[in-house]
Amino acid sequence: MPDVSNLPADSAASVFPASAHAAPPAAGPAAQNGAQWLLRSAAASGLRVCFANPGTTELPFVAALDHVPQVRPILSLFEGVCSGAADGYFRISRMPAMTLTHLGPGFANAIANLHNARRARSRILNVIGEHMSWHLSADPPLASDIESLARPVSAGVWRADSMANLQSGVQSALREVLRPDGGIASLVLPMDMQQGAADWGPAAVACAPARGVFDESAVHTLAQTIRQGQRVLLFLGAGAMTTEALTQASRFAQLDNVDLIGETFPARSEHGGGLPSIRRFSYLAEQGHPYLLEYARVALVDALPPVAFFGAQGYPSYLGDPARMTTLSEPGGGGLAALRRLADSLGLQPARLQAPARISDAGLSDDLTAAAAAQVIAANLPDQAIVSVEGGTIGFPFNAMASQAARHSTIVMTGGAIGQGLPAAFGASIAAPDRKVVALQSDGSALYTAQALWSMARERANVVVVIAANRRYQVLQNEMQRTGHVLQRPDVQALLDLSGPSVDWVQLSRSLGVPAAKATTTSELRRLFHQAVAEPSPFLIEAVLP
Amino acid sequence: MPDVSNLPADSAASVFPASAHAAPPAAGPAAQNGAQWLLRSAAASGLRVCFANPGTTELPFVAALDHVPQVRPILSLFEGVCSGAADGYFRISRMPAMTLTHLGPGFANAIANLHNARRARSRILNVIGEHMSWHLSADPPLASDIESLARPVSAGVWRADSMANLQSGVQSALREVLRPDGGIASLVLPMDMQQGAADWGPAAVACAPARGVFDESAVHTLAQTIRQGQRVLLFLGAGAMTTEALTQASRFAQLDNVDLIGETFPARSEHGGGLPSIRRFSYLAEQGHPYLLEYARVALVDALPPVAFFGAQGYPSYLGDPARMTTLSEPGGGGLAALRRLADSLGLQPARLQAPARISDAGLSDDLTAAAAAQVIAANLPDQAIVSVEGGTIGFPFNAMASQAARHSTIVMTGGAIGQGLPAAFGASIAAPDRKVVALQSDGSALYTAQALWSMARERANVVVVIAANRRYQVLQNEMQRTGHVLQRPDVQALLDLSGPSVDWVQLSRSLGVPAAKATTTSELRRLFHQAVAEPSPFLIEAVLP
Repeated sequence: MPDVSNLPADSAASVFPASAHAAPPAAGPAAQNGAQWLLRSAAASGLRVCFANPGTTELPFVAALDHVPQVRPILSLFEGVCSGAADGYFRISRMPAMTLTHLGPGFANAIANLHNARRARSRILNVIGEHMSWHLSADPPLASDIESLARPVSAGVWRADSMANLQSGVQSALREVLRPDGGIASLVLPMDMQQGAADWGPAAVACAPARGVFDESAVHTLAQTIRQGQRVLLFLGAGAMTTEALTQASRFAQLDNVDLIGETFPARSEHGGGLPSIRRFSYLAEQGHPYLLEYARVALVDALPPVAFFGAQGYPSYLGDPARMTTLSEPGGGGLAALRRLADSLGLQPARLQAPARISDAGLSDDLTAAAAAQVIAANLPDQAIVSVEGGTIGFPFNAMASQAARHSTIVMTGGAIGQGLPAAFGASIAAPDRKVVALQSDGSALYTAQALWSMARERANVVVVIAANRRYQVLQNEMQRTGHVLQRPDVQALLDLSGPSVDWVQLSRSLGVPAAKATTTSELRRLFHQAVAEPSPFLIEAVLP
Repeated sequence: MPDVSNLPADSAASVFPASAHAAPPAAGPAAQNGAQWLLRSAAASGLRVCFANPGTTELPFVAALDHVPQVRPILSLFEGVCSGAADGYFRISRMPAMTLTHLGPGFANAIANLHNARRARSRILNVIGEHMSWHLSADPPLASDIESLARPVSAGVWRADSMANLQSGVQSALREVLRPDGGIASLVLPMDMQQGAADWGPAAVACAPARGVFDESAVHTLAQTIRQGQRVLLFLGAGAMTTEALTQASRFAQLDNVDLIGETFPARSEHGGGLPSIRRFSYLAEQGHPYLLEYARVALVDALPPVAFFGAQGYPSYLGDPARMTTLSEPGGGGLAALRRLADSLGLQPARLQAPARISDAGLSDDLTAAAAAQVIAANLPDQAIVSVEGGTIGFPFNAMASQAARHSTIVMTGGAIGQGLPAAFGASIAAPDRKVVALQSDGSALYTAQALWSMARERANVVVVIAANRRYQVLQNEMQRTGHVLQRPDVQALLDLSGPSVDWVQLSRSLGVPAAKATTTSELRRLFHQAVAEPSPFLIEAVLP
């Protein structure tokens, strides 16, 4: 967020000597400033990318990037793109990225996607530029309580209000983002601390391996329950939806009394190529609650006890019967080991994945529906694709077919804050440029952070975006219908409607540098999708749906 | 912010009875729920507009709008548009608007422009939907610490965690936004409180008149200083840049030893039609500080002591000499009365405004520069226009010509958080649909909240947007130059560059429903601007600048 625009007419910057604003004199050519030390420490700890939207207070950090070639700076035109990209990058690479934002207001624009990242247990190092520390007490226009803004989305917030605190804060922040159960670290970095002398060697923080802990006795007890023939549900969190964990999970297909289900919004899950088809747990209390009650025991594998997405009258917040719930492993824990131990102790055969026949899109009617669009994409998905799903319109039917598609990873919105899909797709493509990223995106949510398209164009990101253009907030129209209230006023009805005007996604995409085309029939979509996946650069398809 | 997209494939909402989600049974047809009471109280207190981006937790509020026709709901596709529009609406109408946003992440997207609104002393009533109160302890995915997010931009935050607290919170919030020195009020409104029975009469809060207080003895002392022939600067805040106050200020032109200057970022100021030309105080310490030191006394009229926008080495945070500074009136106070009393006590003639010859754009070269663009706009500005300025490229030269244009009001970004200009222009046009709004907008900052164009199209807002397309973060390139550092790495240089790809503003605008055209010459700009101001609907001109 660059700042300031209404400069007075006589304020041309160039008439003033550089010295008035220059950093304090350095000790010599070998001197290192705080921003350089921070960047070298991040690089030495394995961080490679900084998703940036800098302003004046971050310029010393920008200048420091010149000296640390290991860190790649990537500009986005809106901070929510930076944070969503860092989230997507982490989910694919398992390594944190940095974000760079401008004081409180710039950081605030990153919060919605940091909320999603927090719920995904992604780890991100936010660097938030701040005024000169000695200037804050004057309450200049851009000053605000950055900590208060950062805390709700951060595992830790550090302020570098001295060079000593810069040193300790950077180390603490790096430790936070590099430990396996770490979270988001936010570092408030005043301009003078970026410029201050910091002649220390880089702090190289090691990325600690995950511990893989699970509850042995819970596994033992559960095995007994299963042997007794009682119905058991294995409720899998994202950590139990890796290729290895799902391979173990597939062994339970040998038992009639054990079912599998996935958590509603896994940060990342693997699909296709013979991995078991894992349905997602419903986010609606009135569906999820009775479903869980069908089981004598629900075993949580790398998952928290399921909670209703929204509270619903007549249903509990914690769904199912807590007394029938067992935790085999906490999120980010030993799901793979727990599943293997459980399967072994039940004497199940080793897994042998067999890829089913891939779904075909032959014979589809040319009427383009959401189901038809999903089928075209599932049938033609490149192997090892990454699918970023935001929006149910194509997302629901695609999920149902995912096990019949080529092997792929899926990342979804975890925290309910929309505007996540395009930035996450962009960040995923930075993490894995050789994998095709397919963003299945509803039109309403895509509009929050459409600026992601510009960054895709600039970085030639390997992404194809499919916009499901139904021109309404479908999920809200569904929810309103369920309240039993029928809206009367046209201007109130219009709150749930995205037509008038309808967004032209082809023009919007081209305006931001991403080539695009419209598909109004199934065969058009098929042709465009083929064309898009064949090129290693971004393309957007507006799928016009009924 | 509608939420949730990755519904499981089997969760079609329609298969479930509405009753499971319905509100608690109402007592009868006359019953009123909390959301209806809130809206009726707001309406009874004079609030007329709600800039909304609702999600599931706000649906009872949306339904309640059906019953309160006095409040006009206006949808925007991004929350930053809602808050920026409410700010622009207040600056023109002097009445607060409501915003409606969805839980913490939705509200977070509104923060940047609320920061600007806070610095403008605008008053806004934020209604933030929240989970069912009984559901919060389960920490569902969309839950977050809303208060922590809201506090930095709010004068008060109230949570309606009971119907009694709903009642008291709404009344407190209305009092906050309706008192003259009030601020932003944020109301966290759980879904069950929106639905709960609230059979109370509407709380009608009166809009209290401003007190108009100034310091009599300071005026007296200052008059003596002026009579002694010492150099005095009258430093005018926004409250002293109304038509009436500037009319009084014009009387000081009769004195050689009194100068006028305006604060750097006034929330609103009046110009043209004979009002005195008021230069804006430089936001750069190295300009502003020595400028103030030229005066024996600096009198603050509805202004705070001037502070450097960014701290600069070698300059104080508080510019000028505090010992030579006098406060005649605090911001929002009695600037008009202070100026009149001071002029009267000095025996100055009554004001007689004489409109100068209007600036002409005849004879301009056809090479389109920022200065030429400003001159075309100043020469052809409709009478009583509202000018929303974000970005210095055209904004600087336009400000320098403002006194030679037709009478107009100017609103600028007050808090340094960019993405303010288009939303504020939109809100201003809702407040004053009969006045032409001209948004002078730089390309970098316009991209933060370009979704405002869609709302302009939907509401047929009377706005012409002029994008100064220079395709770079000019202000950052200036600032970087001043540090003396020359960036070496191409990918670091690219952080301050908006080309590659260049945004096509004509396509972007059309994609969001606003007709648009490109001007590459002065005569093209003149023709397009004439055409745009003649129509009472939105139009965008991309002025392609060198």
